[in-house]
Amino acid sequence: MSNDLFSDEPASPAQDGGLVRIRIDLAYDGTDFVGWAKQPGLRSVQGELDAALEMITRLDSVSTTVAGRTDAGVHARGQVVHVDVSSAVWDRVGPRLDHRLNALTGRDIVVSRAERADPGFNARFSALSRRYSYRVADDRHWIDPLRRHEVVAHRAPLDLDAMNEAASKLVGLRDFAAFCRKRPRATTTRTLLNLHWHRDTHELAVLEIRADAFCHSMVRALVGAMLMVGDGRREVGWLLTHANTRRRGDVRVAPPHGLVLEEITYPPPADLAAQALATRARRA
Amino acid sequence: MSNDLFSDEPASPAQDGGLVRIRIDLAYDGTDFVGWAKQPGLRSVQGELDAALEMITRLDSVSTTVAGRTDAGVHARGQVVHVDVSSAVWDRVGPRLDHRLNALTGRDIVVSRAERADPGFNARFSALSRRYSYRVADDRHWIDPLRRHEVVAHRAPLDLDAMNEAASKLVGLRDFAAFCRKRPRATTTRTLLNLHWHRDTHELAVLEIRADAFCHSMVRALVGAMLMVGDGRREVGWLLTHANTRRRGDVRVAPPHGLVLEEITYPPPADLAAQALATRARRA
Repeated sequence: MSNDLFSDEPASPAQDGGLVRIRIDLAYDGTDFVGWAKQPGLRSVQGELDAALEMITRLDSVSTTVAGRTDAGVHARGQVVHVDVSSAVWDRVGPRLDHRLNALTGRDIVVSRAERADPGFNARFSALSRRYSYRVADDRHWIDPLRRHEVVAHRAPLDLDAMNEAASKLVGLRDFAAFCRKRPRATTTRTLLNLHWHRDTHELAVLEIRADAFCHSMVRALVGAMLMVGDGRREVGWLLTHANTRRRGDVRVAPPHGLVLEEITYPPPADLAAQALATRARRA
Repeated sequence: MSNDLFSDEPASPAQDGGLVRIRIDLAYDGTDFVGWAKQPGLRSVQGELDAALEMITRLDSVSTTVAGRTDAGVHARGQVVHVDVSSAVWDRVGPRLDHRLNALTGRDIVVSRAERADPGFNARFSALSRRYSYRVADDRHWIDPLRRHEVVAHRAPLDLDAMNEAASKLVGLRDFAAFCRKRPRATTTRTLLNLHWHRDTHELAVLEIRADAFCHSMVRALVGAMLMVGDGRREVGWLLTHANTRRRGDVRVAPPHGLVLEEITYPPPADLAAQALATRARRA
């Protein structure tokens, strides 16, 4: 493993060389970002957060490790990241770090918490699961303008029972290649823990979906496929058949702005390091 | 009464001189507007809507009459307006008028309906009641960034039971001068039909409030006063005492962006004209 200060070393760096790992919880409106990941000259969530951290810590370069990388236009309410700093820096910036970060980032990023992480914590590898939501306004020609940045319009009415029935067949450990963008040497096997569509109080169709982890564009590809079942373009049984092909086929990835990263879950503090090791072993 | 094409004549103009009254239902995100009312050189909801109507009808000047005038930053989900045009113009622009308006207005205005009004309909004077909501995030240092345009932060925790108890004393017909901006010769007597605070699923404090009509800034002044009871700066009994002074005192008007005009209610079609006449008589 690398000795790099910002490696994904699972053991707590605080026990080694006087480093402190900081856990930062944040939410953002993804509308005006090119996505999570830093891109030169473009406004990204990571770019904005890292720049604020550099200003506060007076370090030349800070690089956060994120639990759930999000695409352009995708939002988050429960994003988690970690970053390592020296004890000396931590002593200086620790108090009220959340407030300091909020003072420096745009109003579309909100840091709800910035604290010393539990030993063994790794934002990405210690995570047990990721939960996302997706919102669709179906069968109407208008959307509440106050929700236009987080709700996707769908012309035809959706049969949520049909969508739930089709989707229930995908729950469990399986190869989600039919819903993943291909990447060399990356596994597309994931454990889909649960997914369920319901109507909220505003009659929106809302998906809640949880997995140990998602590959790139997986939720939006699943939504695109489920919409085809919901509006009757495909039969209920087609979704499982499609998944078994392990090929993308003609499924359109649903638009990004309906998607919100809601929550990352972690094991109890005592299991954080073991979970990180287990995740690394599984992905390798 | 005036013979002006755009007067608030309660009888349906369709029965007189070949005019057609159009009812338009719309929603808007008030963030980027100076408010409902047209102001030269500034972006207003009415200005945007009237300009779209002028373009579609090819009339030199169109002026809509609104049910609930909103201030800068205040939103609407259930706003209603009317506008009168000649039968010839109506025949030309009537079909799919809602779609045409949405194509011309910004994405922060959404027309959900644009149809020939029932005889006797007047958006302002036929209304039986107006319902508003107001949203507050209390006792926390952060707000969901996706809701930042419609939720107001309040540092201290709010006791909604105390607020509801205090507010219940104001329900009914009374003089709301303590919550109204003074205007010469305008009555400040209104019938407050109901108001209630509750916690929504996101733990926000949400007020639903309905009256026959509200005077200028009345909801926001009521919210400002109720917040003083909710966080303990004032006793429960103070709200009624304050109302009875009929003077504004030191109550701060709550910020506009927490406020949403949710719904305008009208009587059954047969009673629209009589309701308009009765409202005019009461306000005069």
